[in-house]
Amino acid sequence: MKKIINDPSTVVAQSLRGLALAHGDLLRVEQDPAVVVRADAPVADSVAVISGGGSGHEPLHGGFVGPGMLHAAVPGAVFTSPTPDAVQAAVAATTGDAGALLIVKNYTGDVLNFETAAELAAADGKDVRSVVIDDDVAVADSTFTAGRRGVGGTVLLEKITGAAAERGDSLDAVEALARKVIGQVRSIGVALTSPTVPHAGQPSFDLGDGEVEFGIGIHGEPGRERIPAEPADALVERLLAAVVEDLPYAEGDEVLLFTNSMGGTPLLELYLAHGIAERLLAERGITVRRRLVGPYVTSLEMQGMSVTLLRLDEELTELWDAPVRTAALRWGR
Amino acid sequence: MKKIINDPSTVVAQSLRGLALAHGDLLRVEQDPAVVVRADAPVADSVAVISGGGSGHEPLHGGFVGPGMLHAAVPGAVFTSPTPDAVQAAVAATTGDAGALLIVKNYTGDVLNFETAAELAAADGKDVRSVVIDDDVAVADSTFTAGRRGVGGTVLLEKITGAAAERGDSLDAVEALARKVIGQVRSIGVALTSPTVPHAGQPSFDLGDGEVEFGIGIHGEPGRERIPAEPADALVERLLAAVVEDLPYAEGDEVLLFTNSMGGTPLLELYLAHGIAERLLAERGITVRRRLVGPYVTSLEMQGMSVTLLRLDEELTELWDAPVRTAALRWGR
Repeated sequence: MKKIINDPSTVVAQSLRGLALAHGDLLRVEQDPAVVVRADAPVADSVAVISGGGSGHEPLHGGFVGPGMLHAAVPGAVFTSPTPDAVQAAVAATTGDAGALLIVKNYTGDVLNFETAAELAAADGKDVRSVVIDDDVAVADSTFTAGRRGVGGTVLLEKITGAAAERGDSLDAVEALARKVIGQVRSIGVALTSPTVPHAGQPSFDLGDGEVEFGIGIHGEPGRERIPAEPADALVERLLAAVVEDLPYAEGDEVLLFTNSMGGTPLLELYLAHGIAERLLAERGITVRRRLVGPYVTSLEMQGMSVTLLRLDEELTELWDAPVRTAALRWGR
Repeated sequence: MKKIINDPSTVVAQSLRGLALAHGDLLRVEQDPAVVVRADAPVADSVAVISGGGSGHEPLHGGFVGPGMLHAAVPGAVFTSPTPDAVQAAVAATTGDAGALLIVKNYTGDVLNFETAAELAAADGKDVRSVVIDDDVAVADSTFTAGRRGVGGTVLLEKITGAAAERGDSLDAVEALARKVIGQVRSIGVALTSPTVPHAGQPSFDLGDGEVEFGIGIHGEPGRERIPAEPADALVERLLAAVVEDLPYAEGDEVLLFTNSMGGTPLLELYLAHGIAERLLAERGITVRRRLVGPYVTSLEMQGMSVTLLRLDEELTELWDAPVRTAALRWGR
């Protein structure tokens, strides 16, 4: 294993230190427990939108902390759920009378620890709700989950609920909006190589020269099937078909298409895949109204990609377009 | 070789198609020859700032086309200089009476082809100047260059000259500014793994499990020396020392610190390295006034990083802070 680290046990803390130095205008980092908090938190009268999960998926979630998106992010150890006390610290640092929405990716540890934190916060008199995102159509259950996993759709959910909080929506409204997004977003991914977790020191799985893992999870956990590597046209069609047929998305739908790199896949390939996805959606009569292309939900250095579709309406489009200023996503004022 | 492509011969054209679909609000793509042009080009009364080079370094350069940065980018084949007719097409699409500045990374093919294009443009009556950036302190000459290579500093040069063009500076002023930036910017990189060029089909070089290539080029060409892998603290000190001692940057200087991923190195590691670099600069009495952290000048999926320092003054800081709206860099309005 070659990595730019000092020691596996200090990777997350030292990385967060660099994040805070790089983006001091947007966020601050608290250690012990580790929490990334908006520089201007708590934001008076605004619902706090908080997410988190294991590290190693950057820029998720710390890269999305800032005006118009997350109020706090709670990073666990690499590929490990954050502890309840860390989630509780994030709530304490951000949440006022308007309450907080916790966005939880559907992994057993995350669900349990965020639930515990929500109960602790409720005991402190805070109005804290949580929603669980499970957009990955690849498998019904997996190594780390009961039910589907939460993957790329998380970014879209954080952006849209963050925009709603920013414009002053109530906790009831933000929660309802989150459930609407979760109902309309679906994803699937593929891996060409394995990530290497620092404290493991070796690749999480073996994948032959001529094969890819279709329906991979973001921790390198198994997907639907291991298939022979194929040209991009065929691979992207396979990804899109799985997503489109699941909801299903239908002719006449307008969607946001999110073409995501798992980390190690270069932009040269990712834009190529994005172009294919746009063509295939057009052939199905589905209109791509908004796009996001880049490495936003990664699995360390894993090569691969995922495709996420979100069915749009006027409200979701307006919230997607609303200004955002974070380390990883930034537009408008 | 596993890549998300259809065929090595169509990678760049198909990737550009995806880029255009993803960012139609910012840019358009012309094919045969391939050129990425600002959607609103030509911009009346503004100097056109144009750059380009081999593909495989994305988001450089196409990801920097848009208001406040480049007017056009000219992508060659992977790791291959663009042809003079492509550069000429970029000039034709963007350049009016105010003229154009060509930003050329110091590689023999690039210098030759951009020079030829500038001569052709001059014959057409266009005022076209070019500057050559050679910020890589690693080696005096290399496989692809006479003199030092152009690497990470290119991004800073494109941003700052693009901002000057946007505010209406004359070609004389933009050219002088470019030479000032080139005089104050220095970089060096390190590779942990090799990239694989699609049409080669195998890694560009072999690097043992326990070694790294210090002073790597962005085409995977050899650097200063092959050294044993070492902890991040030592590696970042080695990178920074080479850069700081070259100009040299001195106690009391204010700088922009650009911590760049070569593509395959995850943000978790990159922010960790950035934090170390900030600490080491502080220990030398050098003040980090602005930062850029991310994968901006890459070498396909190569794991590794580079460090770039730019000495700042009020003018450069103001131009760096000026609004920019491109696929890869975006802030302000």
